Amino acid sequence: MQDFVESLSAIVGRENVLTAEAQCAAYEEDWRGRYKGRARCVVRPADAGEVAAVVKACAEAAVPLVPQGGNTGLVGGSVPHPDQSEVVVSLSRLNRVRDLDLDNSTITVEAGCTLASVQAAAAMQGRLFPLSLASEGSCQIGGNLSSNAGGVQVLRYGNMRELTLGLEVVLPDGRIWNGLRGLRKDNTGYDLKQLFIGAEGTLGIITAATLKLFPPQASRVVAWLAVPDVRRAIALLGLLRQRTAERLTAFEIVSSAAHELTLKKMTGLVRPLQEISSWYVLAELADSDPQADLAGQMEAVLAQAFEADLVLDAAISASEAQARSLWELRENISEAQKKDGISIKHDISVPVSRIPDFIEEADAALSSAFPGVRIVAFGHAGDGNLHYNPSMAEGGACNAAFIDRTPEVNRIVHDIAHQLGGSISAEHGLGQLKRQEIRRYKSEVELDLMRAVKRVFDPAGIMNPGKVL
Amino acid sequence: MQDFVESLSAIVGRENVLTAEAQCAAYEEDWRGRYKGRARCVVRPADAGEVAAVVKACAEAAVPLVPQGGNTGLVGGSVPHPDQSEVVVSLSRLNRVRDLDLDNSTITVEAGCTLASVQAAAAMQGRLFPLSLASEGSCQIGGNLSSNAGGVQVLRYGNMRELTLGLEVVLPDGRIWNGLRGLRKDNTGYDLKQLFIGAEGTLGIITAATLKLFPPQASRVVAWLAVPDVRRAIALLGLLRQRTAERLTAFEIVSSAAHELTLKKMTGLVRPLQEISSWYVLAELADSDPQADLAGQMEAVLAQAFEADLVLDAAISASEAQARSLWELRENISEAQKKDGISIKHDISVPVSRIPDFIEEADAALSSAFPGVRIVAFGHAGDGNLHYNPSMAEGGACNAAFIDRTPEVNRIVHDIAHQLGGSISAEHGLGQLKRQEIRRYKSEVELDLMRAVKRVFDPAGIMNPGKVL
Repeated sequence: MQDFVESLSAIVGRENVLTAEAQCAAYEEDWRGRYKGRARCVVRPADAGEVAAVVKACAEAAVPLVPQGGNTGLVGGSVPHPDQSEVVVSLSRLNRVRDLDLDNSTITVEAGCTLASVQAAAAMQGRLFPLSLASEGSCQIGGNLSSNAGGVQVLRYGNMRELTLGLEVVLPDGRIWNGLRGLRKDNTGYDLKQLFIGAEGTLGIITAATLKLFPPQASRVVAWLAVPDVRRAIALLGLLRQRTAERLTAFEIVSSAAHELTLKKMTGLVRPLQEISSWYVLAELADSDPQADLAGQMEAVLAQAFEADLVLDAAISASEAQARSLWELRENISEAQKKDGISIKHDISVPVSRIPDFIEEADAALSSAFPGVRIVAFGHAGDGNLHYNPSMAEGGACNAAFIDRTPEVNRIVHDIAHQLGGSISAEHGLGQLKRQEIRRYKSEVELDLMRAVKRVFDPAGIMNPGKVL
Repeated sequence: MQDFVESLSAIVGRENVLTAEAQCAAYEEDWRGRYKGRARCVVRPADAGEVAAVVKACAEAAVPLVPQGGNTGLVGGSVPHPDQSEVVVSLSRLNRVRDLDLDNSTITVEAGCTLASVQAAAAMQGRLFPLSLASEGSCQIGGNLSSNAGGVQVLRYGNMRELTLGLEVVLPDGRIWNGLRGLRKDNTGYDLKQLFIGAEGTLGIITAATLKLFPPQASRVVAWLAVPDVRRAIALLGLLRQRTAERLTAFEIVSSAAHELTLKKMTGLVRPLQEISSWYVLAELADSDPQADLAGQMEAVLAQAFEADLVLDAAISASEAQARSLWELRENISEAQKKDGISIKHDISVPVSRIPDFIEEADAALSSAFPGVRIVAFGHAGDGNLHYNPSMAEGGACNAAFIDRTPEVNRIVHDIAHQLGGSISAEHGLGQLKRQEIRRYKSEVELDLMRAVKRVFDPAGIMNPGKVL
């Protein structure tokens, strides 16, 4: 053991191998405090070469390892096992922007760059890197890639997968695969990068990536809309898409319970509409043209939507400040719910067309099984992705008893999502949390193929064991 | 042998197993007549179940097979080996549209649907399926997926890979993997569909796919531009992208040699600009808004481009008829070159920023090695993809001698593309044509991983042997 730590020190320098409990603690627990492990040690390599040497040393010693970025995940994917068998490989020191190619609209960055720093590097050159999510100040690109991160602009720009052209990866045997290509078209065999994206560190360690950049958004308009029900919200989405195409950058739905809770628990928020409805929509249009008449376009679509009884009332931002304050109503939901107490969180997706069915069926099933349940539902309806979080309205002991029945609640919610052709993890991954649960929903054929891929890339099983598979 | 054919007949019906030479001929040769094989027989299953049974029979008898769609490929990927060892599995009878989900903006189609029929099914419902290429009337979705087809709208909508949400695949052991999900977000393990896309039938047989649909383009404007050189064409692309974002649907460059040849060889084409330049650009803007002032936007960007000396002269379409006739100047290049005689074709890609370097270096190297060479270059500059086709200006015996030196010419062109971070096959795949050549350019690590993936999916090596790897 001491020898092994020495061999890692020889690679990365003594100061970059952490073994003291106090130093390791931050790497051993997720930020929500739901998963706590113990690492053999934490290694902080400085570049891909050092990562490769560390992995090689681990492979030779048959020591398993856990790649870790900003450690902001929600499913325990970057937390080591409690048995102190695993080395945490922190990528934080790989934080260089290697290249920004304006004419190719690409940026090449190392895995340890925070998402915000990549956004900023692109913005400095008048370009947009569109991935955007709550933890962007601390989450890292390697983690975004390994979890195929989503967020609030997927409707227009896609997930992290769609934003990626090339990868550099350290394989489980310590070899480096240089797949850092900045090509929009390359049909020369299997697209290997796709396997590492979303693999949660189980097939190798991503050390750098070449990512797509976009023209900046020079104008935007945000609408907060009261809608009669979710079915009509989805019809409104169809109308907006047909008329505004890629300008439609976000389409979020918020249940009345979520909205009222947010207004009650958070300070400084303003109710945008007097009309009380059971569902609301936040829709955003954005354009690269600073003169684009987005308000005019939004109004034209909404006029048609009012005619068709798809919308009851509307507030449209007349300034950037108003746009921001409408977004705050959406962005503060999670925080408001946290203040209110614990709830059971779900991150499901279904085909967009089945969102109304999902909500109807899940609401009915939970209300029947758990009378008094309150459901805070909201999310990226444009992507078919809902955050669907039940708790007991009464709170206290009653809610604690409900939380104890999480497996039953998950079963109901996940079964319904699955029956509607959906997924039990839309954007958070499997990690430790849903590793068992997924076996209920994936076919044997698919699990077989996944295991076969794992075996061929990582025959010794040292890459992030106990996650995903 | 006879027993084996009988067993296939029992699955698909006697009339769907072709063995007579006259019947098989069309399945044994590519449309350009460059590859000619001989099949053991041609099987025409009707659905995924029959495909699975056929593959299972082949696996049990250790008979290799070649999946075949419209057989419109350019690299011999769907042509059987001449030794009559292989069964051609034609997917043409799997030609149903299984589902069109308007609210989810998806269409689920079988592999044997022609691309044009999928475009038409989408258009009937007021949606766009944006993949578009010359052979769209006869190429099939399964082939488009297996070759990750590109075409003329990749700049805006991506390749076939980016248009695909789910797949149904018959695996080399005859099991069916149902991955027909219509989800925009699903992070539950390895994204297996990505391996089959672009695998040219070497890992399994795709039998159906769920594809993304888009709002239709309600207005468009096309500009034909004379530019001083390629470097400034790329600067113009940057300007157009920044100002018009996703409205920019195509950005094609055409060399003077390509343009003059097209005007000379094809009838009914009109020279759009009197200004004679060494390079031209075709740029298209399209919008879902029928009232969009695309001509105004194009003019505004071009005014800036004229100021910056990026453009010498411009013709902007004032009607749909004019837009079509400008496109004809681009679409007729291949045909004009065919009429002119044989040339050596390349389908390379580089980062968009390196296109000027590629053309400069490749032109210089070829002119030095082959004095009198004439280069017809054109292509999807917005995607970094060029069709770069040298021949001898003098033609006749001189050109025949040049064509005989194809390997030397390829070596020069491919080496330069590779040195610039590019690919030797941007959109046509490897097939038989570039299977050897790619070994020069892929790292050992990458070839190893590709072989390992192949082994794990197809341990017996019966799926389209002799292609890709």
